[in-house]
Amino acid sequence: MPDLVVRLGLPSGTRAVIVSCDELGLTHATNSAIFEALALRRTTSASLMVPAPWARASTANYRGEDVGVHLTLNSELDLYRWAPITQSPSLLDGDGAFPRTIEDVWEHADLDEVRREWRAQIERAVLWGFHITHLDTHLAGVELKPEFFDVYLELAEEFRLPVRLPGVEAEERIGFPFRAEAEERGVVAPDHVVPLDELGNTAAQIIEGLAALPPGVTEVHAHPAIDSPEIRAATPDWPERVAAHAILGQIETIVAGAQQRGVTFIAYRELAALARREPRVAR
Amino acid sequence: MPDLVVRLGLPSGTRAVIVSCDELGLTHATNSAIFEALALRRTTSASLMVPAPWARASTANYRGEDVGVHLTLNSELDLYRWAPITQSPSLLDGDGAFPRTIEDVWEHADLDEVRREWRAQIERAVLWGFHITHLDTHLAGVELKPEFFDVYLELAEEFRLPVRLPGVEAEERIGFPFRAEAEERGVVAPDHVVPLDELGNTAAQIIEGLAALPPGVTEVHAHPAIDSPEIRAATPDWPERVAAHAILGQIETIVAGAQQRGVTFIAYRELAALARREPRVAR
Repeated sequence: MPDLVVRLGLPSGTRAVIVSCDELGLTHATNSAIFEALALRRTTSASLMVPAPWARASTANYRGEDVGVHLTLNSELDLYRWAPITQSPSLLDGDGAFPRTIEDVWEHADLDEVRREWRAQIERAVLWGFHITHLDTHLAGVELKPEFFDVYLELAEEFRLPVRLPGVEAEERIGFPFRAEAEERGVVAPDHVVPLDELGNTAAQIIEGLAALPPGVTEVHAHPAIDSPEIRAATPDWPERVAAHAILGQIETIVAGAQQRGVTFIAYRELAALARREPRVAR
Repeated sequence: MPDLVVRLGLPSGTRAVIVSCDELGLTHATNSAIFEALALRRTTSASLMVPAPWARASTANYRGEDVGVHLTLNSELDLYRWAPITQSPSLLDGDGAFPRTIEDVWEHADLDEVRREWRAQIERAVLWGFHITHLDTHLAGVELKPEFFDVYLELAEEFRLPVRLPGVEAEERIGFPFRAEAEERGVVAPDHVVPLDELGNTAAQIIEGLAALPPGVTEVHAHPAIDSPEIRAATPDWPERVAAHAILGQIETIVAGAQQRGVTFIAYRELAALARREPRVAR
């Protein structure tokens, strides 16, 4: 199959970037920062945690931006918790919330309950009026066990949505050819995924990092939050989230600088359109 | 039966007051304000909303203070929501949260699901390590329909806990003799319940209001919150909550002033001890 950028109508070898924000719905501070970033229109998508406490409230500021469903099976924080939206005993820890670790999910989750819970999360996001453009997972990597990955692809097929996947370089570490499997089944995914803070901490560093990306489609994602007593109490990584909010305030400068270095910016809705257009592979 | 104050070992005719805070667990702002009030040790109890997003986090600051279970069947806010902790289809609205109104609960709730959900809320609070001293309800009044009231009393009997009830003057408005029923079944309840802001908006007014209470045990309760972007986004009544936080900052002055006017201050744990001591009525 031709390269993804070519299938998107871009010249072969293009460096195409999607800038996205994760964990819409987690807290008030997260919602505020993400909608600030989306308002700048260079951060083009957010990923919604349907079972999280502020998910429903995020509809108040939604103006049709691209939203993915951050398919959730973990509630990783010490004391700020969220739970399945379906009756799923195998997805609960002793607190009545999702388990804290991926290993705990892999050990205890019933796959039928996973499938039903994830489908319910997608359906609820649609019911709330979100324009769903893609799927990814929380915690990232929970999908990367063969039987969970099969459910992830099933839902991508059923809803004809692109998915986030680690790049092909991760396959050896992870231990099964997940990208080849997704491609065989005709599921669209960006070629690479990189956390924004891995590219650098200043606008200049991030522009350099974007210009040095490999050819293909890269999703660059961040976890921004405004600084507030709420986020400081909810999660120990609040300083990184507040820093992401600050750097996304410069996203227009970053995008302009990277464009001068030959980077193209696209949105998840273009991958979603491709996913609807391309034939699925019969199983 | 003798008056409650007499059963508590106080002189007949005593004006005894419990100062309590509602809605522990609702938000970070609520938790912060309530633990500030409890730290002053004149606000002696808080009422925990187990299914609310910040309930689990409230354990972080808990130091053995009196905690009641704010038995919850409503999620009344527009877009900040919480849901049953048991599988209870009859307790859900279209968002997958508890219904917003008492009327909606009364119309749709299955009483077996109410009983199981409320019992699970109490059991989870105990599991989290709270010393449970009483029961009340959210929304207040949802228990004041005969069949719901029966469940409320059943749980008070089962866990041998006192309950919050409106004063006898409310019986005509509410339409059934709920206080007489509680007394017949040997369930302990304060004689009166008054929101703090009905007593006034300044320390001086509140001292006057406390001195003018009828004899007997009165629970005076408040809904404090620190001022933050989170509480402002969560609920339109945030100004009243922030005002309650400010006035509770003067609780020591208020208590000292009211004591000079003959008011005695007690705690829910004294009612809880009485409830454990007095024989229940066989049914």
